[in-house]
Amino acid sequence: MVDVKKMFDPALMSYKPPKSTPYAGWGAPGAIKLGSGVPDPQYYPWKLIATLAEEALEKDYQRILSYGMPQGFPELRAWIAEHSEKNDVEIDPGQVLLCDGSTEAMSLVAKLLLQPGDAMVMESPSYSGAVSVFQTCGAHVEQIPLDEEGIDIVLLEEYAKKRQNEEKPLKLAYIMPNYHNPLGTTTSVKRRKELVELAEKYEFLILEDDAYIEFIYEGKRLPSIQSFDTKGLVIYTSTFSKPLAPGLRLAWITASPEITMALTRVKGAFNMSASHLGQAIALAYCKEGHMYEHIEKMNKVYKKKKDLMLSALEEYMPEYVTWTKPSGGFFLWVEIEEGKIDGIELIQETKADVSYRPGDSFYIEEGEGLNKLRLCFTFETEENIEKGVKILAEGIKKLAK
Amino acid sequence: MVDVKKMFDPALMSYKPPKSTPYAGWGAPGAIKLGSGVPDPQYYPWKLIATLAEEALEKDYQRILSYGMPQGFPELRAWIAEHSEKNDVEIDPGQVLLCDGSTEAMSLVAKLLLQPGDAMVMESPSYSGAVSVFQTCGAHVEQIPLDEEGIDIVLLEEYAKKRQNEEKPLKLAYIMPNYHNPLGTTTSVKRRKELVELAEKYEFLILEDDAYIEFIYEGKRLPSIQSFDTKGLVIYTSTFSKPLAPGLRLAWITASPEITMALTRVKGAFNMSASHLGQAIALAYCKEGHMYEHIEKMNKVYKKKKDLMLSALEEYMPEYVTWTKPSGGFFLWVEIEEGKIDGIELIQETKADVSYRPGDSFYIEEGEGLNKLRLCFTFETEENIEKGVKILAEGIKKLAK
Repeated sequence: MVDVKKMFDPALMSYKPPKSTPYAGWGAPGAIKLGSGVPDPQYYPWKLIATLAEEALEKDYQRILSYGMPQGFPELRAWIAEHSEKNDVEIDPGQVLLCDGSTEAMSLVAKLLLQPGDAMVMESPSYSGAVSVFQTCGAHVEQIPLDEEGIDIVLLEEYAKKRQNEEKPLKLAYIMPNYHNPLGTTTSVKRRKELVELAEKYEFLILEDDAYIEFIYEGKRLPSIQSFDTKGLVIYTSTFSKPLAPGLRLAWITASPEITMALTRVKGAFNMSASHLGQAIALAYCKEGHMYEHIEKMNKVYKKKKDLMLSALEEYMPEYVTWTKPSGGFFLWVEIEEGKIDGIELIQETKADVSYRPGDSFYIEEGEGLNKLRLCFTFETEENIEKGVKILAEGIKKLAK
Repeated sequence: MVDVKKMFDPALMSYKPPKSTPYAGWGAPGAIKLGSGVPDPQYYPWKLIATLAEEALEKDYQRILSYGMPQGFPELRAWIAEHSEKNDVEIDPGQVLLCDGSTEAMSLVAKLLLQPGDAMVMESPSYSGAVSVFQTCGAHVEQIPLDEEGIDIVLLEEYAKKRQNEEKPLKLAYIMPNYHNPLGTTTSVKRRKELVELAEKYEFLILEDDAYIEFIYEGKRLPSIQSFDTKGLVIYTSTFSKPLAPGLRLAWITASPEITMALTRVKGAFNMSASHLGQAIALAYCKEGHMYEHIEKMNKVYKKKKDLMLSALEEYMPEYVTWTKPSGGFFLWVEIEEGKIDGIELIQETKADVSYRPGDSFYIEEGEGLNKLRLCFTFETEENIEKGVKILAEGIKKLAK
């Protein structure tokens, strides 16, 4: 027998899923789902999507159904360029690249920048999808903790300085400044500026992942990290997955003309272009004003759910449990005092009734974060949010040492 | 200024586009388009697509618009598994992976198998998109000429043998057995069997690209290379781009359970899953019988166009020009006697009136194939096919030495 496994990419093969994976509750039938970061499915604008698809096809089917440019539809890129003004960024449609979801945006950046052994940093914790993308590309990934303002800038500088003297200096920092996944917290404006200064000083690039920016429940939109960048060192990505629908797999990147062009080449060589039908739907959805309307509606729904989850936590959790209080986004982050429970036991205890994302998914070091959990407050009904938190609290109390 | 270019992937940066690229006629306004391999745009079933999208959304919008499994919709994988019987292949839906176009299928295989310096072979000439995918992944790509039956099996064995004694043995052969792009020719059954025997003997994998299999104008469907494989060494890919629409970006892979699982991991880490809306449309298109109906209709249209192009070549081309006579697919391959013309001059002479794909796009060696051209007979109207061939013939005669 031929051993094909020995031919497989060693970085992929050596990637170990989080310790909790074999135990995780991905949603038993009937279980309350606080795990995945998914919009409220009742509100998907499916009728509108069907209508926009039909209208777009009627007007423009020859373009939509054929091959096209890797960079994406010019009108959609123009809309995104204009929309970027909300982030205090002035860019040209030529600096926008459409791609098949934010995960692909990261993958394209990884493919362009990270050779095996190259160094990058991410926050600790950081988005589980990013942990998997960057680890399976064979790069050396370092996680750096956050303080109240965002990624710890002193530790980041120490690391950047240390790598300067090595063969492979730091190349990339992956940062999620708004409504962080999994934390729900937001990076301060001061820290955003410091990040750009550090990138200039140590010559690394920043990948700013802004997937949740439209979901603001309190406070106001802050200028993006990219808005402080004058040297073309920040690559920004955001997505239609949350303000429209994840199933369309559509996101975008904005960057310097040089980097956008290089990423477009990577995209073109990898899979040609993002789905045209998805682009056509997103274009009509944005241009006709449906997107901002939908966001406004959803933010009322989600703010209420977020407040409800916070109240439930307040009501049911014991005193050795703490959590973040997000002013936007989809998640909050729950920490159980170290040593109080066994994270795997908690999953097993509760998974028939409620699913959540175990904290170790957001760390590279095996088993780290098992006393933490990410809860999503957008997907479930209000009733189930309260019930789910209550079941979790009971499980924690039952298992606590 | 930070020099970001020095951070970019060296394989991408060192990839040189074909010599003809800066001159190529990609279709001047009003020019006849015999260049790209695109279905006849007049026949895109756009109304049907809009209807299927609406019906699918109405029935199943929560699944279609949300996140899903990287491998793709189970019902669509089941349909593909059943459809694979046409290729004399018996597989399970678990051995099917949906992905964003055939180019992505190649990219996923490249990501799983080809580390920088790894060895692979492809036919000479071979599909330009594959040339670009495999070259930009940093692999060592060797092109092997074809004889009447397909890839030259003696030369392939010589190369496989030679690599056996090197640090990096041959890992992959990329083969297009049916209605080859750009040649239009078909690999014999005998050669298909020999390929599998060689793969077993020298322990390499075969990527069988079968993008044009449904477009049969004469003769019958042959068993796929995969049908002779008993050891799980053949990875097969085909696409909805031609029988449905390229703009949906949807293709599939079938392989051994082991390879399918590994490719699914690569796909999931890279961009999560193929567009759900595209999958839902394709599912209804296939299950309700529209696909086979559409293919039957198009094959009549395309056969007529193919015959027309062959007659026009016969009528207008001088005696030092030869061409292939395909029995299916989208292309034929025209060769002008070596030394008769300057390929770049021919592009410049004709590009205001007609576009074609210059032959050097299909070779790795710079400038090779400039006396050859790929013509697509599916896209243009019958009138323009004749006119286009006539203009090309006049250009060739004018420039001939």
